[in-house]
Amino acid sequence: MAILYLSSPERRAVWQPILSAALPDLPFWGSAEEVLDPSAVRFVACWVTPDDLFERYPNIELLISVGAGVDQFDFDTLPENVQVVRMITPSIREMVSEYATLGVLALHRDLPQYLQQQHQQHWQPQPIQLARRRRVGVMGLGQLGLAALTALAPFGFQLSGWSRSRKEIAGVSTFAGVRELPAFLAQSDLLVCLLPLTSETHGILDEELFAQLPKGAGLVHCGRGEHLESDALLAALQSGQISSAMLDVTNPEPLPKTHPFWAHPSVILTPHVASETDFEEGVEFCVQAIQAHLSGSAVPGLVSKIQRY
Amino acid sequence: MAILYLSSPERRAVWQPILSAALPDLPFWGSAEEVLDPSAVRFVACWVTPDDLFERYPNIELLISVGAGVDQFDFDTLPENVQVVRMITPSIREMVSEYATLGVLALHRDLPQYLQQQHQQHWQPQPIQLARRRRVGVMGLGQLGLAALTALAPFGFQLSGWSRSRKEIAGVSTFAGVRELPAFLAQSDLLVCLLPLTSETHGILDEELFAQLPKGAGLVHCGRGEHLESDALLAALQSGQISSAMLDVTNPEPLPKTHPFWAHPSVILTPHVASETDFEEGVEFCVQAIQAHLSGSAVPGLVSKIQRY
Repeated sequence: MAILYLSSPERRAVWQPILSAALPDLPFWGSAEEVLDPSAVRFVACWVTPDDLFERYPNIELLISVGAGVDQFDFDTLPENVQVVRMITPSIREMVSEYATLGVLALHRDLPQYLQQQHQQHWQPQPIQLARRRRVGVMGLGQLGLAALTALAPFGFQLSGWSRSRKEIAGVSTFAGVRELPAFLAQSDLLVCLLPLTSETHGILDEELFAQLPKGAGLVHCGRGEHLESDALLAALQSGQISSAMLDVTNPEPLPKTHPFWAHPSVILTPHVASETDFEEGVEFCVQAIQAHLSGSAVPGLVSKIQRY
Repeated sequence: MAILYLSSPERRAVWQPILSAALPDLPFWGSAEEVLDPSAVRFVACWVTPDDLFERYPNIELLISVGAGVDQFDFDTLPENVQVVRMITPSIREMVSEYATLGVLALHRDLPQYLQQQHQQHWQPQPIQLARRRRVGVMGLGQLGLAALTALAPFGFQLSGWSRSRKEIAGVSTFAGVRELPAFLAQSDLLVCLLPLTSETHGILDEELFAQLPKGAGLVHCGRGEHLESDALLAALQSGQISSAMLDVTNPEPLPKTHPFWAHPSVILTPHVASETDFEEGVEFCVQAIQAHLSGSAVPGLVSKIQRY
């Protein structure tokens, strides 16, 4: 029984000593070359899976993502015996809360317009909208969506949330499923996307969705690039249906040099930095998952192979 | 006994009906021309005072600022009988909390650098610093400084505050007076200025102060333009002593078209919009102050004529 680690040397430098100290009987193999016995590989920690992973190592039980999200895995080719674990570390929640709050406050307080005015050497105050009169809708009510709502609550925004299955959250109006999406969108002055990427959410930020928002809505996108139909967003910005956007992820990503988002006066772009997995917290989470699996208790971060998040 | 109102027609449209309904026996004179009896003017609500105010109206008891701050008043020429009231409305606290949080999160999460990268079509993630490892120091521990600290606390920053006189605030390391300023500055990775403008704080953000911050500190300035020595900030940005700044107020203000701040890659500028006084809340505050004064109870917002804040 061993763990196969397939990620960066920087992360390995943190992971190997902590994993080996916590699980001294579990060999740590840091690459395919280091594997002494392919049949002994029971745990794999990686971001993307090599094509032949499950053929080479037929006894994998846990496939552990070293980052947030598991949308990089191909669930269609996953063998029956493989369970998928996604990493939700405390600092990911913290970083996403910060980013979502930064994005919402930036759009709420007209930062894109002021950046544009700065560029034009134009000193012109705009009226301030009170937070209690601003409706913020969060798409995705998993741990990250909840963390964002918790961070936004003290500012007094009118908060709502939308998710696939119904959730109850104190102080938040919740909407569920495709049927309630229009009602949710119609009352979201500022829309925050923190959805997982699945076949159902792929391309969800499209022309039809933007058209259902209040005129002049803002978009904070810190989900995945593939949620977004970039041309639809450009058209919505052009028509004024969307007034401004803060994008941490793009489609395609990284954004090509010629893409209109770069120089768009109403777009703030960050290069997929809403969160990153702290190496130390990541390996601690990995240890907990393996220990739980070995002892037969509930594995933290276990992903539904049907819902795929 | 009457109130003389000397501010904008837009504000008057909100103020007059509310004031007249709450204090029906108090005539509302909306300009010098409307004054029927100069000796009857006991209350004046204005932003800047006309030069001859106290000569024309010898019986003023309360001089009520219609906005946040009283640094526009000349305390040296105030008659003995005039008390000064500053407006602290709930939404000012809310707006300043939002702005300070926006500024701190923007610098904490490297937004100036990402804006620069966006300008250069350069997709390059930077390492993320955890909030718990970032030290945020707030200068000014009045109602606005406290509101900012309260808003920042949930993000997990290491918080400290500095003020003229000693304050005790749960979860915040506090420093007081000139003697403790160096120790406060030495541990402020991100410095937020929310000081009142007085003769003691005029020009306080100068070369000497910047030199005492940790190398590469960030500045969020939402106090008053006159706190800031602009050339000292430019030099500190140039040397790297300050890495980036978000400025809501400038010196001079508005900023001349030719000023280097406009195009500075490490400066985010907003045109004095951290807060504005909501007209309705403002007149309600004014009513409370007058009612308290008339009934002999403690007047909310009363300003010390010695400390001048």
